[in-house]
Amino acid sequence: MWAVTVQDSGPSNGATPPVLGWAQVPDPTPGPGEVLIAVTASAVNRADVLQAAGNYAPPPGASQILGLECSGRIAAVGDGVDGWSVGDQCCALLAGGGYAELVAVPVQQLLPVPDGVDLVSAAALPEAACTVWSNLVMAAGLSAGQTLLVHGGGSGIGTMAIQVGKALGAGVAVTAGRAETLTACAELGADLLINHRTDDFVERIADAGGADVILDVMGAKYLSRNISALAVGGRLVVVGMQGGTTGELNIQALMRKQGSVISTALRFRPLTGTGSKQAVVQQVRDRLWPPVAAGTVRPVIDTVLPMTQAGQAHRRLVAGGHFGKMVLQVPTHDGIDDNQRTSEGTDR
Amino acid sequence: MWAVTVQDSGPSNGATPPVLGWAQVPDPTPGPGEVLIAVTASAVNRADVLQAAGNYAPPPGASQILGLECSGRIAAVGDGVDGWSVGDQCCALLAGGGYAELVAVPVQQLLPVPDGVDLVSAAALPEAACTVWSNLVMAAGLSAGQTLLVHGGGSGIGTMAIQVGKALGAGVAVTAGRAETLTACAELGADLLINHRTDDFVERIADAGGADVILDVMGAKYLSRNISALAVGGRLVVVGMQGGTTGELNIQALMRKQGSVISTALRFRPLTGTGSKQAVVQQVRDRLWPPVAAGTVRPVIDTVLPMTQAGQAHRRLVAGGHFGKMVLQVPTHDGIDDNQRTSEGTDR
Repeated sequence: MWAVTVQDSGPSNGATPPVLGWAQVPDPTPGPGEVLIAVTASAVNRADVLQAAGNYAPPPGASQILGLECSGRIAAVGDGVDGWSVGDQCCALLAGGGYAELVAVPVQQLLPVPDGVDLVSAAALPEAACTVWSNLVMAAGLSAGQTLLVHGGGSGIGTMAIQVGKALGAGVAVTAGRAETLTACAELGADLLINHRTDDFVERIADAGGADVILDVMGAKYLSRNISALAVGGRLVVVGMQGGTTGELNIQALMRKQGSVISTALRFRPLTGTGSKQAVVQQVRDRLWPPVAAGTVRPVIDTVLPMTQAGQAHRRLVAGGHFGKMVLQVPTHDGIDDNQRTSEGTDR
Repeated sequence: MWAVTVQDSGPSNGATPPVLGWAQVPDPTPGPGEVLIAVTASAVNRADVLQAAGNYAPPPGASQILGLECSGRIAAVGDGVDGWSVGDQCCALLAGGGYAELVAVPVQQLLPVPDGVDLVSAAALPEAACTVWSNLVMAAGLSAGQTLLVHGGGSGIGTMAIQVGKALGAGVAVTAGRAETLTACAELGADLLINHRTDDFVERIADAGGADVILDVMGAKYLSRNISALAVGGRLVVVGMQGGTTGELNIQALMRKQGSVISTALRFRPLTGTGSKQAVVQQVRDRLWPPVAAGTVRPVIDTVLPMTQAGQAHRRLVAGGHFGKMVLQVPTHDGIDDNQRTSEGTDR
């Protein structure tokens, strides 16, 4: 099969971006309890950028190929798989391997394509849906009438979190660094818009009574201010560390808020059991797919690029200014021979 | 009424302990929704020691008198109080004022004296019971088959947490600094005994598969090691900061554990509503009082001293080596005139 490969990770300080290629690699084989997906599309996550630069190793046993989610059709079924058949459309949460024509995945990580969502767009759903649902609902217990603060409202996670927050009946505040991003967040339902370049989010959210739940991607840089921004009983959920991994925690400040700091990552969850990928995927299917099918919550897609241009998509993510997800579509075989695909594949 | 007074807070660095007295002060009056308790006994909490030294201000509106819990009989009932009558035995969670002959308290903070517990011993229950239940069960969701790590197993909180953990069906590990304390913890049901002076608790608990819940009183000093000691999905609950208030939080380490850091204090909870004192007291009454009445969970009392010797009790708490709670019993009027009480009252 063809897959995106990391031709050169670049320096570990990220001074020059990694070079991604498009090359032939061995096909994966579905093991017991797994299916093989003929990938229609994958989507870009920040973890992919870190992994390409050599800063985020896949968990043991996972594919070394980039890509944490995909959509496609089932091409083969391993032993012991019930409920899925060859030819079925699906999307999936992956521990890796989505930037490829084929990927093998445990059946517990499969989701149906929600009604009303096309197969390419479905690639933009699994990571954002599972990340947002597992954190806002399962970890932080966000409920109707509460206030949610979403940092980075224009990201794939952010655009999903705004919609899920509103669907749950919460008030939603967002931060972003561009006026046009905030306007687009408002169109998705955000109630309180905070430009972090000009406004102090702690003051703005305090005026609104504090945040019952904060979904954060900045990590260390925002740790103290996020705790200041919590309402009494508030929960800070950190799912990204764009502002560093280690920060000062004032436990007394947390105690006065009766607060919690929670950090989770889908990729390191066990496959089955309490807090597993299976548990998250099942709740997403049961509780989030209905509002997606109803059009209340929709995948927000910034751009769809051929998978051969994954490097360009990564550079756009790092540069910022995107709104929603970048989808990477596997080139079709029609009219493209392998030589052509090789020549279009190198994406420097 | 007579009450313990802080005659001299001492230097803020705690180099010399505060001087406590026993003096006449104005009687409290029960407001609407409050009862007046004729106090039989109170008990010592570390917060009392901090407050006496001027390092822990009571919340706005609370009594300035020390004492976060008491037992006694209802002496008067304010407007709008149902279900409690003059003469009823009770114990109560207090925002302050327990080190006195009389205290006024909102009815939401009242608990009946569990069957089989005498009225003096009941003074040792409210803070430990409410702290342990609100944190282990309501905040951290400890359940059967999980592993609980209790730091300071010999404290009032620790002795209650061991018993509640076992009553919930959890495995219980404890740390303490003395062999005899650990032996006594084992008699209360603790399964894994860790002497923190000679053993690395992170290694010991890792050998047991990590802690699903840690109940911590050390704060900053243990923050990193506590996160290392968590099992996947583990919850660190910090209820004391004997080792400092501000520590480094490695969010990446927390993320790899899918972990939570939670900090709560009963004293700063609102009276009613979500996460309130009322919510805690109600659950304690419904779910913890039955095993207390059955003798499965019992108040562990180190010493009972006259309330006039509160200063001695504080010094014993600070010195360490106690096991369970120190109870302070209000002197009876029989045979003691006010002069005698004054002369015995100054406790330097």
